Amino acid sequence: MPGPTAYFDPATVDSLDPATRDLVERRIRVLGGAYRLFYEEPVQFVRGNGTKLYTADGTEYLDAYNNVPSVGHAHPRVAAAIAEQAARLTTHTRYLDRALVDYAEDLLAEFPAHLGNVMFTCTGSEANDLALRIAKAATGGTGVIVTENAYHGVTTEIAAISPSLGGISALAPWVRVVPAPGDGDFELDVRAAIDDLESSGIRPAALIVDTIFASDGVRPTVVGFAQAVAAVRSAGALFIADEVQPGFGRLGTGMWGFARHNLEPDLVTLGKPMGNGHPVAAVVARPELIAAFGEHARYFNTFGGSSVSIAAAQATLDVVRDEHLVDNARTIGDYLLDQLPAIDGILEARGSGLFIGVRVENEDVALGAVNALKRRHILLGESGRDNDVLKIRPPLVFDRADADRLLEGLTEVLA
Amino acid sequence: MPGPTAYFDPATVDSLDPATRDLVERRIRVLGGAYRLFYEEPVQFVRGNGTKLYTADGTEYLDAYNNVPSVGHAHPRVAAAIAEQAARLTTHTRYLDRALVDYAEDLLAEFPAHLGNVMFTCTGSEANDLALRIAKAATGGTGVIVTENAYHGVTTEIAAISPSLGGISALAPWVRVVPAPGDGDFELDVRAAIDDLESSGIRPAALIVDTIFASDGVRPTVVGFAQAVAAVRSAGALFIADEVQPGFGRLGTGMWGFARHNLEPDLVTLGKPMGNGHPVAAVVARPELIAAFGEHARYFNTFGGSSVSIAAAQATLDVVRDEHLVDNARTIGDYLLDQLPAIDGILEARGSGLFIGVRVENEDVALGAVNALKRRHILLGESGRDNDVLKIRPPLVFDRADADRLLEGLTEVLA
Repeated sequence: MPGPTAYFDPATVDSLDPATRDLVERRIRVLGGAYRLFYEEPVQFVRGNGTKLYTADGTEYLDAYNNVPSVGHAHPRVAAAIAEQAARLTTHTRYLDRALVDYAEDLLAEFPAHLGNVMFTCTGSEANDLALRIAKAATGGTGVIVTENAYHGVTTEIAAISPSLGGISALAPWVRVVPAPGDGDFELDVRAAIDDLESSGIRPAALIVDTIFASDGVRPTVVGFAQAVAAVRSAGALFIADEVQPGFGRLGTGMWGFARHNLEPDLVTLGKPMGNGHPVAAVVARPELIAAFGEHARYFNTFGGSSVSIAAAQATLDVVRDEHLVDNARTIGDYLLDQLPAIDGILEARGSGLFIGVRVENEDVALGAVNALKRRHILLGESGRDNDVLKIRPPLVFDRADADRLLEGLTEVLA
Repeated sequence: MPGPTAYFDPATVDSLDPATRDLVERRIRVLGGAYRLFYEEPVQFVRGNGTKLYTADGTEYLDAYNNVPSVGHAHPRVAAAIAEQAARLTTHTRYLDRALVDYAEDLLAEFPAHLGNVMFTCTGSEANDLALRIAKAATGGTGVIVTENAYHGVTTEIAAISPSLGGISALAPWVRVVPAPGDGDFELDVRAAIDDLESSGIRPAALIVDTIFASDGVRPTVVGFAQAVAAVRSAGALFIADEVQPGFGRLGTGMWGFARHNLEPDLVTLGKPMGNGHPVAAVVARPELIAAFGEHARYFNTFGGSSVSIAAAQATLDVVRDEHLVDNARTIGDYLLDQLPAIDGILEARGSGLFIGVRVENEDVALGAVNALKRRHILLGESGRDNDVLKIRPPLVFDRADADRLLEGLTEVLA
């Protein structure tokens, strides 16, 4: 008998209730074979509010997993900003737009002064794709270093640097993989990757890492990070901090994950929580890199930085500040990190703020827990090379009562 | 003295009025050197309605250029659908969503039966990137054939097949370029490109064309199109119809440009007008291609097919049908195509529906006309390898009075 799975298995469609079965069958027919549904039994939500999601019959679920609705599902300020702008005008960056410039300045004020330019895209995939284009153009190199189970997105270029998608065999020949921090010596591993690229005649262009190493199972501690980045710079390459998941306050230590490690990235990519669900993303960069890129390429993203996208992003940034969500991420995250190790079956709890990885015995335990929690109306996911890490990554408005409900659920399902 | 330009030249910033100058300078400081502003004197709009855009002082502009707000700027039904859904829930395709399945079925009903699957992305660039990934996975080939001044998007992969971005020298080695239809013999040129790929040891994967050849200067007539596609298929490659610009009724002959030529594409890409400005795009495909792709790759696009995106796309599709915009595109397009050739200075008017290219004497005339029309509060653009084609591509609600105002403006500026 196969173990539990993170996704619905279409072979089990007959076990679903008739209405769900009908919808699932229709979905498979039109969306085809590359889509996945969460959980052994898929679920449909029709409404959200804060950390809660509701099915059509009114059943409430606690969302301890979704990082995109970062300031809370259907936040009224974000929804109102989107509604107001959509009713007034949506246009693009080839017309002047004061709100675009205001937001760009406001966002850049959250970054170290050397990161003085921002370019807008719609998705984190596009942001990482653009960052890599800029890095390759600016360095003249092509070599890219990533971690063992990295995920950076789904464009052709970015899928080719994302071993979590298809394994190391699917990577481009100019990619080198290093073990996740903690599984090796990060500095030595990065140095070895640089040497390996150079001895293959490939000039290094960039080291790119998710600064919380989410798909590598959440790694808040990185020994030798600054030295690894210095080695990359010495080789003429750039450091790209992928903040698509950790960015905008989730780690509870400030806005960005790279700052936890006192790093100065050359390029930073932003995405998922930036518009609380609206498709908006960005690359933040040293101006000289953008200038070098702009000399040889023109870049226009029809929807990137469009009026409604900027309205959504501005409202989201305002709420992160006004509701003190960085502080909340730290407070509730610290509470969880304090309580989790006491639960039977948890081998290790690691993380920062509201990005926490909980290591359990093996993949079966992790996937079993995810599905059992879902039956208890708590949403969680898993991660890591060995799929043995539960990923706690809720909206940042997660409060103490939510945390207690999650702890109670974990205690029950891991018992 | 340099001729007129399509874009603002930062060297002329001192000639702007103080308020505009201040905003432009702030913009350049934060967005950096890869962004462009339309027109010799940039313009800021604060409100839109139908085919009209308004500046802060209430000046009305006629929009004869923007194809994204296809059902009209700030259409109330689309804005209401976005507002309602954003206030209720935004989530992604790993949860069940009846509205997603309903829309997918509704959209696919507009396609020939063999195109039975749809996958959602956020931008046309992502759609073309995904279509190419699917084509390469399904054929085992890598070779791609495009037209001489093609533009398909800005991801690394798609910029590498877009000669209009950086010229033929910036293309990937597995790309072959054919003259735009009318500049050569399309069938023979495509056959020669296939031969050239094969003799270089490159297996062909796809011919991809914008079915109205917009960046090639708008080419409604394509002799030998079906034969070219047949030759591509015989070589084991696929035909990708890029409908990002012509799709959703603009050509006035039905929903899709490929149907004008009685073609059966293997993959179709959609984008710009799909959500009337909301970032939503898609790949429509033969199910067996998606199945082949899904065997080796998982694909998840966080915002692709998200709840608000689907609400925007459904409302837009509903409006295209309910307001009979395909018919309007044909009626007004036919009127323009009938009237335009009588205007002094117009060498040729060609197009279909509300996608019309107007060839004038040279680039200086075209760019001068674009800027002169803008001063008369009419928005238009230019296109083509030689930049000598004015591009008429308004919202599909463009009416007879709008057409007359445009014809009058063109008559004045070309005199």
